[in-house]
Formats: sequence, structure tokens, C-alpha cells
Amino acid sequence: MLYRNLAEILGERIEQGLYRPGDRLPSVRVLSQEHGVSLSTVQQAYRELEDEGLVEPRPKSGYFVPHSRQRPALPMVGRTAQRPVDVSQWDQVLELVNTPAQADLVQLGRGIPDIDAPTLKPLLRSLSRLSRRQGLRELSYGSLAGEVLLREQVARLALDSGCQIAPDDLIITTGCHEALSAALRAICQPGDIVAVDSPSFHGVMQALKGFGLKALELPTDPLTGINLEALEMALEQWPIKAIQLTPTCNNPLGYVMPETNRRALLELAQRYDLAIIEDDIYGDLAYRYPRPRTIKSFDEDGRVLLCSSFSKTLVPGLRIGWIAPGRYLQRVLHMKYMSTGMSAQLPQLALAEFIGEGQYQPHLRRMRSQYARGRERMTAWVSQHFPATARVSQPQGGFMLWVEMPQGFDSQRLNRLLAPHKVQIAPGSIFSAAGKYRNCLRMNFATAMTADLEWAVRQVGQTVGELLSTTPSSEAP
Amino acid sequence: MLYRNLAEILGERIEQGLYRPGDRLPSVRVLSQEHGVSLSTVQQAYRELEDEGLVEPRPKSGYFVPHSRQRPALPMVGRTAQRPVDVSQWDQVLELVNTPAQADLVQLGRGIPDIDAPTLKPLLRSLSRLSRRQGLRELSYGSLAGEVLLREQVARLALDSGCQIAPDDLIITTGCHEALSAALRAICQPGDIVAVDSPSFHGVMQALKGFGLKALELPTDPLTGINLEALEMALEQWPIKAIQLTPTCNNPLGYVMPETNRRALLELAQRYDLAIIEDDIYGDLAYRYPRPRTIKSFDEDGRVLLCSSFSKTLVPGLRIGWIAPGRYLQRVLHMKYMSTGMSAQLPQLALAEFIGEGQYQPHLRRMRSQYARGRERMTAWVSQHFPATARVSQPQGGFMLWVEMPQGFDSQRLNRLLAPHKVQIAPGSIFSAAGKYRNCLRMNFATAMTADLEWAVRQVGQTVGELLSTTPSSEAP
Repeated sequence: MLYRNLAEILGERIEQGLYRPGDRLPSVRVLSQEHGVSLSTVQQAYRELEDEGLVEPRPKSGYFVPHSRQRPALPMVGRTAQRPVDVSQWDQVLELVNTPAQADLVQLGRGIPDIDAPTLKPLLRSLSRLSRRQGLRELSYGSLAGEVLLREQVARLALDSGCQIAPDDLIITTGCHEALSAALRAICQPGDIVAVDSPSFHGVMQALKGFGLKALELPTDPLTGINLEALEMALEQWPIKAIQLTPTCNNPLGYVMPETNRRALLELAQRYDLAIIEDDIYGDLAYRYPRPRTIKSFDEDGRVLLCSSFSKTLVPGLRIGWIAPGRYLQRVLHMKYMSTGMSAQLPQLALAEFIGEGQYQPHLRRMRSQYARGRERMTAWVSQHFPATARVSQPQGGFMLWVEMPQGFDSQRLNRLLAPHKVQIAPGSIFSAAGKYRNCLRMNFATAMTADLEWAVRQVGQTVGELLSTTPSSEAP
Repeated sequence: MLYRNLAEILGERIEQGLYRPGDRLPSVRVLSQEHGVSLSTVQQAYRELEDEGLVEPRPKSGYFVPHSRQRPALPMVGRTAQRPVDVSQWDQVLELVNTPAQADLVQLGRGIPDIDAPTLKPLLRSLSRLSRRQGLRELSYGSLAGEVLLREQVARLALDSGCQIAPDDLIITTGCHEALSAALRAICQPGDIVAVDSPSFHGVMQALKGFGLKALELPTDPLTGINLEALEMALEQWPIKAIQLTPTCNNPLGYVMPETNRRALLELAQRYDLAIIEDDIYGDLAYRYPRPRTIKSFDEDGRVLLCSSFSKTLVPGLRIGWIAPGRYLQRVLHMKYMSTGMSAQLPQLALAEFIGEGQYQPHLRRMRSQYARGRERMTAWVSQHFPATARVSQPQGGFMLWVEMPQGFDSQRLNRLLAPHKVQIAPGSIFSAAGKYRNCLRMNFATAMTADLEWAVRQVGQTVGELLSTTPSSEAP
């Protein structure tokens, strides 16, 4: 797969801005000589990049970086940390997660991956084969920590993110949800303060609320993640117990925290004796390969609790996640026992088979490139159909786009206006403990880009425009 | 099924002590006239009772209540309530629930039903058929409250326990574990006091521990459950937030709380404005049919949170439970979202199909009579193989026997001595917040009664005897 390597190298250079929109890219001949590969390999790499929307062929002139690569402005950095707050917004979260599946609803709001990919078929086959083969014995209680066959596969996969984890360091959970919530409860007592990236995953926000914890929202850069200076200041000021963040393919902003920042964060955590709860649920969906290393991979004293699941990389419905809780293993095991007892065996065995048969990586490769293309198209549609004041995230992985409108804009009202059109977005306020980001929205570009989807994004953009024209904006003169 | 009705009537009379051990039962002819059924129907009823160990034929003399019905003494009533305590004993619980399945271990300790029953086969077929038919769509996120098809079936089944519940009053959970733990968190804040029956299910004890709640252990009668006078005294003395109990086929004692006590408990709860968390996981396994009404069935102001699952009636491995949280519905939904997000769809749909096809009741009928027979045999074996000081519970449902040895006896040491013989029991101390009942043990009689099982019970009895002969007993002169 020489052409893939080449495509990845070129793609990375474009992503990093080495070639600018409108630039002509090196010719097929030049690249062939530079990299010592055949002309057809270079052509195949360019075709791949064309599919991903990263290059554009012009007849007789070669390949160019498309003008649509001219990115909209980035969302502004969140306001600086103020004080730990109690979490609100449950009503809005409930509205989002409890919307029943409707055939005619274009659901842009939820974090659902593309579950129609043919590379998932072997997983269905494993599930069905194991169900047929399964005796009643397999329907008894399994082990509390989870099936060892799956823990072995997860430990093997973790090597890709630089982690040396033994199967015995892992606990299988009911989705990443249970992993995160067990991690929080293993570390914190009610009233404790947890620092979080901001915007941040609403599931964690609601867990904080439910356990009586306070959230300290850290200013977060849309390209590099939490501001470490701000974190250090907060650590001086408040008795922070843990920091919870999603550093790789962040939800909702999509950034990848630079490796130097990861190391610096870990040093801070050591200095102030904090635990780090690292949500890596989108980590394997980084567009660049090899994927970024986890903070956990640099951890030497077991203070990082790495949480993940197969809900975003494969399918959500198996409800299988995992946690590598480091020094908190025994406490997390206790929390898992309390919350659900055991996890179901069959989906664990099916996943172990799917990964063991080497089906996971091909699926990831497909999804990485599909989601990278999705980002390009969705960004282009937003540029085209949204008011020019829209600021847009530049995700480096995953399948979510974050759009920021001027202060005063109300994305909850937007959702109400979209309801008759059968389109739903995620309002920004659910990604904040204090209900900030009401002027923002998150949209999902996981599914193959269809005309329906463009129609929906145009519908959102138009409705945003209508709302804006009737809303007094704090940015207006 | 006339003979079944007759067998149940006769069985009940024997259970209630209307006929005593050694008594001759009415002749076939007399019963045939009394009940207006054929001679062969009466004979069939007697054969059924013989299978259950309730009657014994003597050639040419008719049917008799066997002498083995001479029951060993009941366990003593727990000591009176003292003060709310923090829960301990996690290490012992972990040892029990984390023992890996071993082909050569006779596991008497865990709460596992008989999963080899042929009446479960249709459930396997549903699982396998649905897995084959399932597309990737079904592997997305389901509804937060659970599949409506299953909620409809659960609502229908609840009629048997006198409950009028609508599907919308129900939330599907990941086992009864999640139901109980969400219920506790929906009602209590850390530091709150929860009154519990004692001995009590270790899963709830550990949830109390994990949430920082205190347990107030109520004196509990081995035949009628918690002592209501003691509860009332405790309510006068302590700010109790909720009461958690298993009134029907209690775990571990097996009693059924009388209906008058249920009503009286509910009145107390109204008077002192308490919530009642009613664990009904063994409720459908009451030996008598129709099964006892739940406390929930008398509830008029939504203060009872009824928790259950299919882990004891069918198989544990599906991890599907449910809760009818009354007025706490919204808070419990929030807690469920926090702890696991959604529950897996496929096992929910398979269960809905199994119940909808009418397979649940025939399975229950089979299990009720198997477990009733199991109780008889296990009790007889304990009488035969244990020291005479053993006191034994008289379960009215479920598949657990509780054995109490004199004070000073150590069931944790017993387990260590049993390990080389590949037999495990549940030590009594895990059923108490404060680690009481160390002199007690719980044994499972769910599986079909084999020679292996009798050998294991004899082994336990002998080891108990050896331990006793070297232990100073506080009851010794």
C-alpha cells in the first residue's frame, strides 16, 4: 500500500498549510523521483487525496489545493476560568438523547458513527455466529473485569497509541459512559472540583451533576486544547481533584492536543497530585496515521485513567467500553460492581473475534478517510450556506463540526425552528457546565455525504440566517 | 391442568403445617370426591407432590408427609437496630464475584439460577434469530428508557404481582444492579441513612458504600421479614431517607413478607415520608402461585421504586433489568444516563419476543417446582450432613438456603478450607453492612440435584463440623 503512505504524507503537508489553497502541487514525475515509487503509485495517491477533497485536478495543469480549503475563521477561545460551578442543562441533553429514531429525521445532533460501512459486516457475522453457537452456559454471569479474550485484544490495540497495558490492567465496561462515570466516582467525593475542557462532552457534565461534583471549565483553544497556563492558575486557586478531558479528536471541537502539551499537562498533574481522566473514545479516528499517543502512554505513576469504547469506532449498540484505571484499578472495579455488576459476555466475545481476525484496522482506515472527506464537504457547505459570521472548527479526527455564531444567537431556539423541517442539531449549551455556548451548535458528518445531508445543512444555515436577522447580536455595532 | 391446581392446594396445606410430618394425607378417593375431579387427576397431583419431596407414598397405606419435613430450627432473629454504619466487606464480595468459572468447582456461593432448563431454549433461538436478522441499524443507540416492545411486556407481566404499570412508567436497566443503584442515587445524598433488611443483598450494601451512604440494619424475622416496630423506633430516632428491602423470596433468607406487613410498611413510609426501594428480582420464583403482590401494587403516591430483572428468573448474562420508579422517574432516568447511557437493544428485543410468545410462564412453572424440590433436598442434606447446631432458613421461593451456625463460627475460614475440595459457599458476613453473620453461610440449590451436589453439601457439612470442633463457641457451656 505504497500509495496510501504517499497520500498520507501529502495530506499531512496540506493539512499543515505547507501548500496553501490555490497552490499547484508537485507533479507526478517529481514525486515519483522524490519518493522512489512508480508513476502509477503517485497517480493512485492523488486519486485518494482527490476523494478526500484535499486536492483538485485541473486538466493539463496537474493537481492543486482547492480554494474551498480556504477555511472559515476558527471559533474564539473560551473565556477564562472563573469559578467551579454546578452543572445544569439536563433538560436539553434529555431532549437530544431521548429523541426516538425517526426514518424521516436528519439527525445531525447525536454522536452516532456511520454504521452502514461494509467493513462492519464481519462484526454482524461474528455476533450471529456466536449467538447460534452459544449455549445457555454463556448466558451466566461472566467475570467482573470482563472477558479476558477481549481484554487481550484491547491491550494489543492500545499499543497503537503508545500504551503498554496488560489485560489485567483493564476493566470492560458498559460503554465509555460507565468507564467515565466509574472513574469520576473512584476519585472524587461529592463537592469536589473537577477541571474540564470547555466545550466538553455532555455525558461527563451530567455525571458531574449527578455525583454532586463541581465543574471548573478551562479556557480551551480550538486547535490545541486546554490552556495550561490557565490550568496552572486554577490549580493554585482551587483544590482541584481531577482533570477530565478528551485530548485526541476532541468532542466537540475535534482538535488534537499537541504532544508537548500532553507531557506538560502530565507534569502539572504530578506536581499538584491530580488524577487525569482521559477520554479517548474518538482517538482511533484521528485522520492522520499513526494516531497520536495518549497521555496515558507517558504516565509513569498510574495517575491517568484511560477511558474508551467501540461506540464511535464501530457501533454504539454493543455497549462495550473499557477503562485502564492505573493505580485506581481496585476502586474502579468496585464502582463497576456497584453500577452494573457484570457486562454481557456475547458482545465482548464478538468484538474479540472481530479484532482478532484483523477486521478492526481495515475498518478504521476506511472510516478515517471517509470522515476526513466528510469534514471537507461539511465545512464547504457551512461556508456556502451559513451567514458569513459563522466560525467553524477544524477537526483533526472524528465526525463532528462545531459552528460558532455571534453572541446572542440561540441554538436551542434554532432547534425548535428546525423541528418542522425534520432536522436536529446539538445545541452548544449542553457542552458547558454553566450553559455557555448557547450561540454554538454541533453537527455530525459521519454518514456518507448525500444530497439529503446537504439539503439539511442548507436548511440549518438558512434558519440560522433568519434567526440572526431577528436577534440582536452583541457583536453588532 | 386440574392436577396442578390440586397439587398446589395440597402443597400449600403441607407448607402451612396443616398436615405434620408423619401424617397420613387424604386418600385419592376422598380428594376426588372433595374436589370433583377424577381419580387419575388426584394421582397425578400426588405424583407431582412426590417429585417435589412434599409427600411420600407407602405401599398399600397411601400418601404421607415425610419425616424429613421435620424442619431444622430457624435462624435466630437478627439483633436489634443499633446505629447507622458505613459498609465494609468489599474484599469478601470481590472474592465471591470474581472467582472465574471453573469446570471442576461446585459453586454453591453465587446467585446463579439453573441455566440448563430446556424451557430457556426458545430464548436462545430468539437471540440467534434476531442476531441473524439484525442489520447495522439495530446497533446504533436505542432509546434511553429502553425498547418499548420490552417495556410493554414487562408492564404486562407486572399485572401478576398486582401492579398497574404503563410502559412509560418503566426504565430498562443493565441488570437489577443498575436499577437498585440508580434508585439509591436518585433519592439519597452522601451521608444519608438507608434502612435495610438484615441479612441483605451484598450488591446493595456495596452500592451504599460506594455512594457514601450509611446502612441501618433492621432486625429481620426469618419468616416474615423486617420488624416493623423496630423500624418505627428507628424512624423516630434517625433521619432515614429510604428503606431498601427484598420482601418477596428474600435474598438470602427466602421469606415472603406477609401482605398485612407490606401494607403497614407502606403506611409507615407515608407517615415518615420515606421512599421504598423494593427489590423483586426473585419475586416471580415464589413457590406458591399466584405469586405475592408487590409493595408497589399498594402504592398510591409513587413512593415505591420497584426494581427487578430477568437474571434470576431466566439468565443473568443478558444484563437486562428494569425499574418502575414512580414519582422519581425523571431523576432515575438521569442516573441511568449518567451510569451507562443506553442499554443494548438486541437482548431487549429477544426478551420481548420470548415473553410475547408466551414462553415466560411455562419456564417459571418449571423453575418454581424444581426450586421447591431443591429446597426440600438441600434442607434434608443439611439436616443429615451438618452438625445438629445448624439452623436453617425455610425459603418460600428462589434457590438459596441460609444456614446459621453458633456464634464464633467463621464462614470465611470455612471457604478457605473448602477451596482445595473445589467447593465454594457465600460467607454470611457479606450480607451485612457491618460484617455481622460471620457464623452464617448461603448455599445455592438452583441446579438439578445431582450426586455431585450432595457430595459438595456433605463436604461443607463435614468441614463445618471440623471447624466447630476446633472453634470456641459462645453458645458452648
